[in-house]
Amino acid sequence: MALVVQKYGGSSVADATCIKRVAQRIVATKKAGNDVVVAVSAMGDTTDDLLNLAEQVSPLPPARELDMLLTSGERISMALLAMAIANLGQEAHSFTGSQAGVITNATHGKARIIDVTPGRIREALDQGRIAIVAGFQGISQGTKDITTLGRGGTDTTAVALAAALEADVCEIYTDVDGVFTADPRIVPTARKIPGISYEEMMEMAACGAKVLHLRCVEYARRFNMPIHVRSSFSTKEGTWVVSDPYSEGTEMEQPIVSGVAHDRSEAKITVVGVPDKIGEAAAIVRTLADAEINIDMIVQNVSAAATGRTDISFTIPATDSQTALGALKKIQDQVGFESLRYDDQIGKISLIGAGMRSHPGITAKFFAALAGVGVNIEMISTSEIRISVIVAEDGVDAAVAAAHKAFDLDADEVEAVVYGGTGR
Amino acid sequence: MALVVQKYGGSSVADATCIKRVAQRIVATKKAGNDVVVAVSAMGDTTDDLLNLAEQVSPLPPARELDMLLTSGERISMALLAMAIANLGQEAHSFTGSQAGVITNATHGKARIIDVTPGRIREALDQGRIAIVAGFQGISQGTKDITTLGRGGTDTTAVALAAALEADVCEIYTDVDGVFTADPRIVPTARKIPGISYEEMMEMAACGAKVLHLRCVEYARRFNMPIHVRSSFSTKEGTWVVSDPYSEGTEMEQPIVSGVAHDRSEAKITVVGVPDKIGEAAAIVRTLADAEINIDMIVQNVSAAATGRTDISFTIPATDSQTALGALKKIQDQVGFESLRYDDQIGKISLIGAGMRSHPGITAKFFAALAGVGVNIEMISTSEIRISVIVAEDGVDAAVAAAHKAFDLDADEVEAVVYGGTGR
Repeated sequence: MALVVQKYGGSSVADATCIKRVAQRIVATKKAGNDVVVAVSAMGDTTDDLLNLAEQVSPLPPARELDMLLTSGERISMALLAMAIANLGQEAHSFTGSQAGVITNATHGKARIIDVTPGRIREALDQGRIAIVAGFQGISQGTKDITTLGRGGTDTTAVALAAALEADVCEIYTDVDGVFTADPRIVPTARKIPGISYEEMMEMAACGAKVLHLRCVEYARRFNMPIHVRSSFSTKEGTWVVSDPYSEGTEMEQPIVSGVAHDRSEAKITVVGVPDKIGEAAAIVRTLADAEINIDMIVQNVSAAATGRTDISFTIPATDSQTALGALKKIQDQVGFESLRYDDQIGKISLIGAGMRSHPGITAKFFAALAGVGVNIEMISTSEIRISVIVAEDGVDAAVAAAHKAFDLDADEVEAVVYGGTGR
Repeated sequence: MALVVQKYGGSSVADATCIKRVAQRIVATKKAGNDVVVAVSAMGDTTDDLLNLAEQVSPLPPARELDMLLTSGERISMALLAMAIANLGQEAHSFTGSQAGVITNATHGKARIIDVTPGRIREALDQGRIAIVAGFQGISQGTKDITTLGRGGTDTTAVALAAALEADVCEIYTDVDGVFTADPRIVPTARKIPGISYEEMMEMAACGAKVLHLRCVEYARRFNMPIHVRSSFSTKEGTWVVSDPYSEGTEMEQPIVSGVAHDRSEAKITVVGVPDKIGEAAAIVRTLADAEINIDMIVQNVSAAATGRTDISFTIPATDSQTALGALKKIQDQVGFESLRYDDQIGKISLIGAGMRSHPGITAKFFAALAGVGVNIEMISTSEIRISVIVAEDGVDAAVAAAHKAFDLDADEVEAVVYGGTGR
C-alpha cells in the first residue's frame, strides 16, 4: 500500500461538477489500495472575488487580515470536496493549514514553510480516512496567525506534506498533460517530457515555465520527493520530476537540451552614462534591493575611454518597474548617471538541459538558430545547465520555435493539449 | 475605561458599505475611551450561498464538513471588518472562534459553548487593538474540530466572550430599536421596552420574539452579564436585559405584563382515541423524544366514560411534522390509538411579565380580551411569569392586538421601526 499526496488547483475544483469529478478520482486512488492525502486550492475565481471585496473596504488592507480573508477560499473548496467524497461512500476529513500542522514564518502573503507536523493527518489516515488539506496556507510559528504562501502555494503545501508524511509520490494535477519541451501554444510540435531532474525543473520554473512553481520544486529536491505532474482530465502518465531521471535502469536517455522556456514578464532598465568608478554599480544594485526588487539579468558595457562612463542594463519583473524607476531617480544626482531607459517589449528565451554540462557548442548552435530567424540577442546569462537570452518581444515566438527545432525537440506528431490557468 | 463587547449580525455587514458603517461605529466606541471586542456574523446571504453549494455536491453532507464550510462565512466578514477599521486608523485583529478560545462540545451544527479562554483577545486589548471575533463558531474540546453554534450563535458568542472577559456590557446590534411589547408589524402601537429581566426575556425568546435567542439570554443570566439590545442604524438607547430592571434606584416601574409574544412556527398533532391506560401517553411522548422532537404544549382530554378512550394533543415545531407523524404511525398498532389529526394553521400567543406573580386575575382578563375579538382558545399552558394559548392562525393578529390593548401596553404615539432579519 502506497501513500499518495495529490494536489488539485483552482481550475480543477472550479464548480460543483468539477469537485465531484475530482472526488471520483480521489476515491479511485483510495480504492486502488492507497492512502490518500489531498491538497486543494480555492475554487476558480474565489480569490479574485475576495480581493475585490477587500478593495471595496480598504485601499491598502493589512497583510494579516488579507491572509485571514483569502484562506476562507480553501476552507470552502476543501469542505465541499470532503462532502463529495463522503457522498461516494468514503470517509474524508478536511483540515485547515493550521490543523494539518503547516508551520510557516510570519511573512504574510508569501510565508515560507518552516516545519510540517502532520499528526492529525497521520491519525486520519490510520483511521482509514482520506485527508483533505487546505493548500496555500499555514500558521505562523510564534504569533500563531494565519498565513498564506503566495503564488504556487498549494503545490508547495502538497510537496511539504508529502515530505513530512514520507509519501511515495506527490501528484500535481493540472490542466495540461505534464511538462512540455516548450509552450505548445507557441510550438505545436512540443513534446511532453517523461522525466526531468529537480535542477532542470527549477531552471524551467525560474525561466517562465508555469506548470510548477520554483519553491515547490526546491522543496521536493530538498526532501528527494518524486513529483508526478499530470492532467486531471486524463489518466495518462505525465512528467516525473525526480533526482535522476536518466539513471541506469530507466529507459530515458539524457537529452542535451530538455526544454525551451520563455518569459515575457520582465522589463529592461538601462542606466545610461554611469561614471566608471568603483562602487557605482553597487549603489544601483543596493537601491533596488532596498526596494525589494529582484534583479534577474544584469550586464555592464565596457567603459568608453573618451567619457569614462558606462551603461548598466538589468532586467526585473515588469510589475516592479515604477518602483524601480522611482528609486533610481532619487539617486541620480548622488550616482551622477545621465538618464534612464526603459523597455518592457522584451522576452527571455532559455535553453535548459543537464546534458549541457558535458556537451560543448550548445551556445553556438543556439545563437545560430536565433540568427537564422533574424532575432537579435540583447543580453545573455548562463548557468551550468541553462543559457538565457533577452530578445525583442516580437521575436520570442520565432526564437522559441527555432531553438526547439535546432535541438531536435520537435515531435513527429502534434499532441492535443488543453490549456487553462491556475494561480495558487 | 469600560470593556464593551458588541455583536453585529449578518444584515449589519451585508456588503462593503454596511461593513464600513459598522467600522465607524466600532471606532467611535473605541475613541470614546473603551476597549472593544466585536463578534460578527457572516455577510448577508453568505450562509445560504454556501448551503446551496453543499447541496450541489452532496444531498446529505457530513455535519463536520458542513461546519467547516459555513465557518468560512465569518472568516470573510471579520477580516473585511478588521480591514475597514484599519482604514480608519485603528488597529484591529480578527480571530477565529478557535483563536478566540471558544471551546464547545462536539455536536456539529448546534454545539454548546463549554468554556471560553480568551487569552489572545485579552492580549490584543492590552496592545490597544480592537479584537474582531468570528461569531457562531468554536472548536470542540476533545477532537479539536471546527463547530458551529446553530441559530443565534453569534449572540451567544458575544455574551460568552463578554462573560469570560468580564466586560461591562454586551451590546447586541440589530435592525430594530430594541425589544418591543409586541411585534410592531402586527401592533403599530407597540412600545420599546426600556428594561426587562433575564427570566422575562427568556420567556419572550422561547415564545417567538426573534430579537434575541434563548440560549444567549440563558448564558447572560448565568453570568449576570447585562445585554443592551439596540439598533445599528441609530444611537438611541435600546432595551437593557438585566437581572432586575425594576430594582430600587432605577426609574422603571414593574409592569404586570411586559410584552405579548406570538409564534406561528408550531403545528398541532392530535392522537385520537388513545386507550385510557397507564403508560399510553408515556409511550407517545417517548416516541417523539426518540425522534429528537421537542414537544412544546401538551393536553389530554378527560376520558369519555363510554369508550374508555381519550385524545392527546400536543404542539411541535412544524418543521418536525413529517418525522413526528411517521414515528407515531409506527406505534399505532402497539398503542392502539384510532387516528392522527394534524393542523399547522395555528398560532401561539403568550403574555409575559414578572409582575404576574403578584397580580391575580391576569388570565381572566387575557381570555376576555381574546373572546372580545372572537378568538377561540384551543390549548393553554402557563408558567409563573407567562400564559400561552394556542389559537387558529387567522386569529393571531387580532388576539395579539387585543391582549396588548387590554394590558395598557399601547403607546401614545407610533414609533417608526425598520425591519429586516438575520439568522445567526
